Amino acid sequence: MAEVYAVGIGPGGRKYMTQQAADVLQAADVLCGYPVYLDLIAPYFPGKEMLSTPMKKETERCRMALEAAQQGKTVAMVCSGDAGVYGMAGLLLELAGEYPGTEIKVVAGVTAALSGGAVLGAPLGHDFCVISLSDLLTPWKLIEERLRCAARGDFAVCLYNPGSHKRKDYLQKACDILLEEKDPETPCGLVRNIGREGEEKKLLSLRELRNTEVDMFTTVFIGSRGTEIIGDSLVTRRGYHLSRQGELT
Amino acid sequence: MAEVYAVGIGPGGRKYMTQQAADVLQAADVLCGYPVYLDLIAPYFPGKEMLSTPMKKETERCRMALEAAQQGKTVAMVCSGDAGVYGMAGLLLELAGEYPGTEIKVVAGVTAALSGGAVLGAPLGHDFCVISLSDLLTPWKLIEERLRCAARGDFAVCLYNPGSHKRKDYLQKACDILLEEKDPETPCGLVRNIGREGEEKKLLSLRELRNTEVDMFTTVFIGSRGTEIIGDSLVTRRGYHLSRQGELT
Repeated sequence: MAEVYAVGIGPGGRKYMTQQAADVLQAADVLCGYPVYLDLIAPYFPGKEMLSTPMKKETERCRMALEAAQQGKTVAMVCSGDAGVYGMAGLLLELAGEYPGTEIKVVAGVTAALSGGAVLGAPLGHDFCVISLSDLLTPWKLIEERLRCAARGDFAVCLYNPGSHKRKDYLQKACDILLEEKDPETPCGLVRNIGREGEEKKLLSLRELRNTEVDMFTTVFIGSRGTEIIGDSLVTRRGYHLSRQGELT
Repeated sequence: MAEVYAVGIGPGGRKYMTQQAADVLQAADVLCGYPVYLDLIAPYFPGKEMLSTPMKKETERCRMALEAAQQGKTVAMVCSGDAGVYGMAGLLLELAGEYPGTEIKVVAGVTAALSGGAVLGAPLGHDFCVISLSDLLTPWKLIEERLRCAARGDFAVCLYNPGSHKRKDYLQKACDILLEEKDPETPCGLVRNIGREGEEKKLLSLRELRNTEVDMFTTVFIGSRGTEIIGDSLVTRRGYHLSRQGELT
């Protein structure tokens, strides 16, 4: 049985990878992925055959991986963060039926909601939503509806793909929807270049976030009513303080 | 500066831990945690001082960790999954102000939404919510409201703490709320003992899930309208098929 492993490598550095991910990459004949992620890990796994396609050529990338597996090679598809969350695991599973005798195995990794959350403190310490603002593959109306529901449910929210050259005002539009329900002083945070050179974080209010320009290397966190800035950290409280105060009885 | 590391170890086995988590645990003088998780990792990090408290004694556990740090020891608070997501990172940050000179550092890990997702395929391949059904620290009415909003927003949903001895009917109640909006045939999945001995998975419809009894070692996944069962995997499609069909233009 030919195998393609969809491997989440976390934010990029070797130390954020699980042992399982490192073992699978080490054992693979071929590493396949988006060029930026392959460059990140190439130094740790020298001497591998590398296959890549540019952005928006994800279907072709998965087919390359499946074809290499059919040729008898062990293939690892490298995904930043987790292999499942906006990663290639799903697309590989969708396509695998066209390549008889191939099997997809998924190796989880630390997605940006978690790695960025750790940089800020614990912004996702209670119920949360993850929403991508990219409308390349999702109708913008559905994104708007999800933002509205996330705000109504008082979830902490983590936004992926909050901006790019072509989508300069998407974060502003998203914040305006959240502000229909949420307090403008809701504590928020952003992290740029998580776990990479030039990592930076910022704490700010939802009102301030609305007027902030971000790029595609940024992950955005918006608090719930249980979120506070404590020292220089963003923390969504789980409710131990309510328990102590007897407010749940 | 005394340091307490809040460390997410993933589902349990050494191979699911990041290199960073393993390095921090190796360097620590004291490992602190819930007994079950300490037992999971003790064999990999012998010779450490161990501090634990039972369930519902999380505040005391964090205070023990902070006090040990004030005595000059390097302390790692062991959290299953991620340190932030329903973990101890937030509570440590809340309490740290009472222990001058202590600093909390958070080390992310693979939370059950990701590790369980990998077992099933890619159920969280697009926007998703994570909701805990435990009402120990959260009013049940808020949990209900979040379930309702998650269903209205057509999120894929991952449920933590879906059941226990005392909360046998919580999953059924949650499914009934989701069924107000969602198709009874919505593909769902559950994973028990993720990454541990006796790991099992099951794919089923939301209608079937409603009549399934689960325990506290189970993580539940409920699909969005973009979720399908493909082979023996649960996949939430990201939209590449829409792009191919020209439905987004």
